[in-house]
Amino acid sequence: MSVEEVLSELRRRIQSRLPPDINVTGLEFEGPELVIYTDDPRRLADDGEIIRSLAKDLRKRVVVRPDLKVLMDPEEAIKKIQEVVPKEAVLTNYHFDGETGEVIIEAEKPGLVIGRHGATLREITKLIGWTPKVVRTPPVRSSTIANIKDYLRSVQTERKSILRSIGRKIHRDIASKDQWVRISTLGGCREVGRSCMLLSTPESKIIVDCGINVGSDDSATPYLYVPEVYPLSQIDAVVLTHAHLDHSGLVPMLYKYGYEGPIYCTPPTRDLYVLLQLDYIEVAGREGKRLPYDSSMIREALKHTITLNYGDVTDIAPDTKLTMHNAGHILGSAIAHFHIGDGLYNVAFTGDFKYEKTRLFDPAVNSFPRLETLVIEATYGGANSIQPSRKEAENHLLRVVRETIKRGGKVVIPAFAVGRSQEVMVVLEEAIRKGLIGEFPVYLDGMIYEATAIHTSYPEYLNNELRDMIFHKGINPFLAECFVQVENSKQRDEIINGEPAVILATSGMLNGGPIMEYLKGLGPDEKNTLVIVGYQAEGTLGRRIQKGWKEIPLTVEGKTQTVKMNMEVVTVDGFSGHSDRNQLMEYVRRVYPKPSRIITNHGDESNCLDLASSIYKKYRIPTSAPMNLETIRLI
Amino acid sequence: MSVEEVLSELRRRIQSRLPPDINVTGLEFEGPELVIYTDDPRRLADDGEIIRSLAKDLRKRVVVRPDLKVLMDPEEAIKKIQEVVPKEAVLTNYHFDGETGEVIIEAEKPGLVIGRHGATLREITKLIGWTPKVVRTPPVRSSTIANIKDYLRSVQTERKSILRSIGRKIHRDIASKDQWVRISTLGGCREVGRSCMLLSTPESKIIVDCGINVGSDDSATPYLYVPEVYPLSQIDAVVLTHAHLDHSGLVPMLYKYGYEGPIYCTPPTRDLYVLLQLDYIEVAGREGKRLPYDSSMIREALKHTITLNYGDVTDIAPDTKLTMHNAGHILGSAIAHFHIGDGLYNVAFTGDFKYEKTRLFDPAVNSFPRLETLVIEATYGGANSIQPSRKEAENHLLRVVRETIKRGGKVVIPAFAVGRSQEVMVVLEEAIRKGLIGEFPVYLDGMIYEATAIHTSYPEYLNNELRDMIFHKGINPFLAECFVQVENSKQRDEIINGEPAVILATSGMLNGGPIMEYLKGLGPDEKNTLVIVGYQAEGTLGRRIQKGWKEIPLTVEGKTQTVKMNMEVVTVDGFSGHSDRNQLMEYVRRVYPKPSRIITNHGDESNCLDLASSIYKKYRIPTSAPMNLETIRLI
Repeated sequence: MSVEEVLSELRRRIQSRLPPDINVTGLEFEGPELVIYTDDPRRLADDGEIIRSLAKDLRKRVVVRPDLKVLMDPEEAIKKIQEVVPKEAVLTNYHFDGETGEVIIEAEKPGLVIGRHGATLREITKLIGWTPKVVRTPPVRSSTIANIKDYLRSVQTERKSILRSIGRKIHRDIASKDQWVRISTLGGCREVGRSCMLLSTPESKIIVDCGINVGSDDSATPYLYVPEVYPLSQIDAVVLTHAHLDHSGLVPMLYKYGYEGPIYCTPPTRDLYVLLQLDYIEVAGREGKRLPYDSSMIREALKHTITLNYGDVTDIAPDTKLTMHNAGHILGSAIAHFHIGDGLYNVAFTGDFKYEKTRLFDPAVNSFPRLETLVIEATYGGANSIQPSRKEAENHLLRVVRETIKRGGKVVIPAFAVGRSQEVMVVLEEAIRKGLIGEFPVYLDGMIYEATAIHTSYPEYLNNELRDMIFHKGINPFLAECFVQVENSKQRDEIINGEPAVILATSGMLNGGPIMEYLKGLGPDEKNTLVIVGYQAEGTLGRRIQKGWKEIPLTVEGKTQTVKMNMEVVTVDGFSGHSDRNQLMEYVRRVYPKPSRIITNHGDESNCLDLASSIYKKYRIPTSAPMNLETIRLI
Repeated sequence: MSVEEVLSELRRRIQSRLPPDINVTGLEFEGPELVIYTDDPRRLADDGEIIRSLAKDLRKRVVVRPDLKVLMDPEEAIKKIQEVVPKEAVLTNYHFDGETGEVIIEAEKPGLVIGRHGATLREITKLIGWTPKVVRTPPVRSSTIANIKDYLRSVQTERKSILRSIGRKIHRDIASKDQWVRISTLGGCREVGRSCMLLSTPESKIIVDCGINVGSDDSATPYLYVPEVYPLSQIDAVVLTHAHLDHSGLVPMLYKYGYEGPIYCTPPTRDLYVLLQLDYIEVAGREGKRLPYDSSMIREALKHTITLNYGDVTDIAPDTKLTMHNAGHILGSAIAHFHIGDGLYNVAFTGDFKYEKTRLFDPAVNSFPRLETLVIEATYGGANSIQPSRKEAENHLLRVVRETIKRGGKVVIPAFAVGRSQEVMVVLEEAIRKGLIGEFPVYLDGMIYEATAIHTSYPEYLNNELRDMIFHKGINPFLAECFVQVENSKQRDEIINGEPAVILATSGMLNGGPIMEYLKGLGPDEKNTLVIVGYQAEGTLGRRIQKGWKEIPLTVEGKTQTVKMNMEVVTVDGFSGHSDRNQLMEYVRRVYPKPSRIITNHGDESNCLDLASSIYKKYRIPTSAPMNLETIRLI
């Protein structure tokens, strides 16, 4: 059946389920959603049950939108909304989208706008015609998110046509009688840095992650020129497990070389990848490096991004459904689960994951409806890659901070903007609040503040305790007074010459960024302490300092000079967002259902091989640790 | 460097090596050969050493051809040739090729035309301008070979342009800085019937074999639609290990779907694949099956075929050299050895091979200049797949024949036209000649006679003893009086109702062909014997009879009837052209140098897995038995 025939058949079925006086004026696939246009959305909205049962019956994600002619003038609509919604909701902003007929309502308490079982929302729909969507008023304004919203609004006509064409591709006919599922390894196998795999069937080709190894020149990018993926026009979808550059960094380049399809990721991953990619090309450009893409390609990627929340089961190809599950690694990080065919095969990619509860996130999901193959990261896959518990790590950090502050020194913590910084912030805030380590400012320098703003916009992606603390106890640790955003060099000088403090600054491996200024200013004084909480790759300045270098060459604002490293250097292990060896083995033991095959990646060669052979020995599950450029047939 | 630049640089180097008065009028890559055109080929021919040292120095296969304007009129040239060549050579035919400036001279004793170290040939070149090539006058005329020659002559202009374009592709610049070698499995893995693998590097893509499983509808053809090989225009070369349809049967279809490159195989493989493919489409067409290609595609394949003799080291891609080595399986069968990069990697595909001396062939070659990966067939790879020795098999066959003839019966041997038939013929001829089993006619029915004619055209592809017998002892067993070609149904009736005899008839698995008539006529009489010397696949009539069916449905000339099988049925093992388990293991033990990796294919799942694990256990060489649709990275 052609897509046209599918749509008209669906339209017949939908119309037959609706009261005869409700008129379906249009039906369209937009991305993975089936959109019902009606000139009487109020009537449909009246009965939430109709849509729920339609969605279940049609096995599609169903959305109802008003026919454009029934939309109320925005000015008037705002008044109506304000009449219906209780004052306590605190409405702060409205965005009307003429293309989709949606109005995005920002409120401090979105629950009150939604009402019991969505009653208030339905009431609004009935009154104004527009379909209301509610989002929480962000406690800290993220300029990234604001820019993304503005941009998407500015291209909404084009985006709508992109979504339609994606929708039609997803719902095309299945053509082949062959049945097979394959994984091709394009990057990130027996290495860390350019994660990229291709999941393919006779019907569809899906790229899972497309990272860049920013620390390498020779092997920076995945093997995208091989015929399995090239030309990129044949790719159906790109799925991102999370926003770190080694998983998302090369995605914009795909659009430069002919890819035209969607990117699926969680909403926080979208915002964070935009932040990190823009920063990446800005820094690389400043250093005079050849850029794989420019900001117009990032906008192109954004235009094609379709966000999915954890648990949304979504058609992304004629034979493939994708569901994202919490991975516990960073904000929005996901284990990507693919259901292929009608019960034919299930495969999950862990991406980077943490199988331990952290300050910010719940441990990674380990239960799936079905699972035959698990692709698991092996960053700490080696037999000796055991990390201290998070509790031990926190105590260690606090001890070092307390001692340094006590002796009148300053603590410098190099940190990745996304992930470790927020973990450390929560730990420090609690300790300061509870009076465990004294009172002092915690300076945030580099992108950390902006990344934190994005975190505060997605409380539903944080773990229960943190969400509970923010919403019910009214303590938002990210907004605590101790945190001070650093804006410029003058302020840095003042901090360097000022009172005891903690400074969180990027970059995480000391290869650039504001951290360099602090190192220069604070390195020579032995009262100060450099606390390393993140992984330092071979070849970085961070690794050299860890090894004990006492004199380091520093380039700050173009000038290179030698700086004596007299400050104390402490490595605090245990803050990693990756599962350590014990957590990896425990995850495999507990993952449900037990997979019949496990593939290791995202670790150096020995870690990938060691984890694979250990899993086989202990659990008798067949494993492999492929090289890049291989293709494994799953069924 | 562009190909043009390479050629003009080569021309400079060649001219500088030649005496100043010898003029190079043109230089061109034609297929894998570098062709030097000169208006004075006599001078170049005078000194064979110049060309040999040029070839060695340039690391190219160098051919000298006369500029067209120096060619003598053919009539006159024939007279000159006859003057120079001694009478005893017995010249029988001449083919002048105006495009290449070559004259093919057929002689009963080609050695006398060549002369000592090629002296006579050079003399001829000097006299007539044409470049002489000598071939042996075939003792039996093969219509296949005659037709192939006629056809190739009729398309010589087009073929020349094809060879030029292939030559330019082979000698193109190397573009990538990446170095890797991969094998993708497209068919014939954990199965027998549609052998096809892809050998790829960043520079080149080579298909090794492209077979069809004539016994299967669902899985008849290799996975040629996957992006690793499709579109076929990206393929550099197709290499055929031998002519059997499960290795060559789908090659013509490649040209239907966009392939435009060369086919490399030995000369006998070319002639035999044409014979077998034409027969395949004729039989399939008669049975009303859907044909994957028609005879025009076979001609297309032929037009693109470049033959290589055993031992010729030949550039087939910018980074790949191919050498064919005797595989001992059937006439012209080869182990294909690939040397990739400048010493980067070596991989050999055994194709089907016999590691035992047979009546026709030497055992497969087991020594290579270098070897890292060996892809080995596993037809008899299972631990229990032990076959009797060839000597035991022969004695068994002769015993059965003797007894049947003695009791006044007839022996019916179903056989594949190419391979087993000729082996059995040689055994029977010797036994009859030596008076071991009496005297009686041996009837050849089906394509056997034509296949035998092709064998007699390539004595240099037979083993020493047989060649020696033919050339020095004057006994050509294939031409013995006992062999009688059967031409029609009437003759068959006469044979069925006639005196004791042996009948060799196709098809080998009793699924059609003239064998059916003999079964119908001779099956009911218990004096007769059916001797099965070849493998009978599950589902064939041959397998059913082996299992003891006493009544069989026979369709002869469209009519189906039940025939009582009263004749004795004897299976004589040991005539297989495949190495049995012991020979496979012995081959691995002795192959030199020891490969660092072995991949098994061409066997059912358990045989491939069993051979792989046995090799690993015994020799500690890492092995794998991939499924179809996998890609293995070798380096």
